[in-house]
Amino acid sequence: MSRRNSPSPPPAKRAKRTMDGPSNFENPNGNHNALPPLSLSILGVEPLDEFIKEIADFIHHMIMTRPNMPGQVEVEAKIGVLRDLSGSRLSLPVLVETILVPDTIECRFESNMSMHQHKHYNNLLNNLMNTSHQSNRPSPPLEYNHLHLIDTFYPVEGQRQKVRVTREEQSGKVQECMKKIRLGDLNIYSPKRAADWRVSVNLEVPVPHPVGSASLTRRKDRLSYSHEEYKIDLTQVTSTTSPNAPPQVIHELEIEIARSELLLSTAAVRGDPNVSEQERSAFDELIRAFVNNARILVRNSNDGWQ
Amino acid sequence: MSRRNSPSPPPAKRAKRTMDGPSNFENPNGNHNALPPLSLSILGVEPLDEFIKEIADFIHHMIMTRPNMPGQVEVEAKIGVLRDLSGSRLSLPVLVETILVPDTIECRFESNMSMHQHKHYNNLLNNLMNTSHQSNRPSPPLEYNHLHLIDTFYPVEGQRQKVRVTREEQSGKVQECMKKIRLGDLNIYSPKRAADWRVSVNLEVPVPHPVGSASLTRRKDRLSYSHEEYKIDLTQVTSTTSPNAPPQVIHELEIEIARSELLLSTAAVRGDPNVSEQERSAFDELIRAFVNNARILVRNSNDGWQ
Repeated sequence: MSRRNSPSPPPAKRAKRTMDGPSNFENPNGNHNALPPLSLSILGVEPLDEFIKEIADFIHHMIMTRPNMPGQVEVEAKIGVLRDLSGSRLSLPVLVETILVPDTIECRFESNMSMHQHKHYNNLLNNLMNTSHQSNRPSPPLEYNHLHLIDTFYPVEGQRQKVRVTREEQSGKVQECMKKIRLGDLNIYSPKRAADWRVSVNLEVPVPHPVGSASLTRRKDRLSYSHEEYKIDLTQVTSTTSPNAPPQVIHELEIEIARSELLLSTAAVRGDPNVSEQERSAFDELIRAFVNNARILVRNSNDGWQ
Repeated sequence: MSRRNSPSPPPAKRAKRTMDGPSNFENPNGNHNALPPLSLSILGVEPLDEFIKEIADFIHHMIMTRPNMPGQVEVEAKIGVLRDLSGSRLSLPVLVETILVPDTIECRFESNMSMHQHKHYNNLLNNLMNTSHQSNRPSPPLEYNHLHLIDTFYPVEGQRQKVRVTREEQSGKVQECMKKIRLGDLNIYSPKRAADWRVSVNLEVPVPHPVGSASLTRRKDRLSYSHEEYKIDLTQVTSTTSPNAPPQVIHELEIEIARSELLLSTAAVRGDPNVSEQERSAFDELIRAFVNNARILVRNSNDGWQ
């Protein structure tokens, strides 16, 4: 074996060649568990979380390439189940949570759960909120709003997107009148849990109140929890397509980033060397906690789904 | 919608109902990037790393259910490429690193790389070692040994495993004489990188020196780097099956946990409520840094593989 082809030793520190790293940590008492704390890695740091980076890159790309029209960017994660063409839960030969390549697997995402499951999350979030209000907690508490909303949808000639008008149920006051443009989705398959999830990026464009008659009405009974920059919505949705058709009831859980302007301003300076380290990484930090929160919701799913 | 079926508000803290969490962080200057640091999640902590936990569970299971015979447990991660039946690199419809379900996908793991790739890792590890010896670094430095070893393999009648005798090339001194029993492997598919990896757990059982003639000889030119509880081996392996056959040369990179006794002692008390928190979690900490190190190696692969 020629010297040229074989691995070459480092150029310096040859005097240390006979030292044996691990032997520095031998404990003469034979208690091998009582070690000094290990470094996180040979570099002393955790490697980048590839999963969170992938989601941040995707959301960033959707934001930076969005259609040039005024509107709010909505980033949300829905908790539900990925189903194959037969209606069964998707099954892939992987052991842990992973992100699917878009448009390669024939499946649909079902944003729905059993009432039992919904109740389970309701209890979890209520307990978490009550605990978060205890005075010795360092992080800000969760808050909530109980909302009763009515969405009506109006078809627009020549366009795929319907116009959605949202009213407060009791007062009838119009809260929002907009067209939602889907920018992109990522499906996350989570074989160890009872639920999968989907990250969606949408553009919500305000429009004038439509004329004509609505094609669909949706009644939303929503508990909206908020924590820092995130909203977690637990919603019972009752849809009616016509006065004679039986209403459809579904139970949804989603988390979204509360402020579009924060998303846009942090995305604009992501990685920018001309701003402070804190500003440059603010977008990735925003997405990190978003993904962490979605994961915590998914991992607390019980077995009410499949 | 009956009250019973709709999500119920938390039982307490109703007075806070109109508070809006996110508004606490509004900045009157309109600089939306200058926020107080976000919590890691609604729970204030990072969720468990499912990937690392899966690998730790697997290794723990292999250790606790191993055959009852004296020997060293070897836990290693090899860096290489997963190939399908056609010989191409495996391709699955996922975007990020994931662990494959054993025995569901027809593929083989190739523990080999180009000489160019090997040289790249040699440089990386040498640079890292030199940097680690600078006096201002808080973590212990990397060390290394340059080894020249000869393995000879002896078939044993009626057994699948061959006996391996390892000698120092120069002195001819026998270093090890053992039978390696494969306990299990996990393949890790890493679509964003030039390399995949495989975690293997083996039992190395010492045996008497065999008689008869060797069926295979393997010459190993190895740079063995060590850091805390890990060894990273960069090896050029030249195999010869008969005096007339041309020798086969492969280039390997693997990381292993240096001390079997530490693996066994920490595995034995994993999660045990009767020992200290530090001892109880020592096994998982050992695997965490092992996985972190393997990931760092994979992520520093250049494009010399596919």
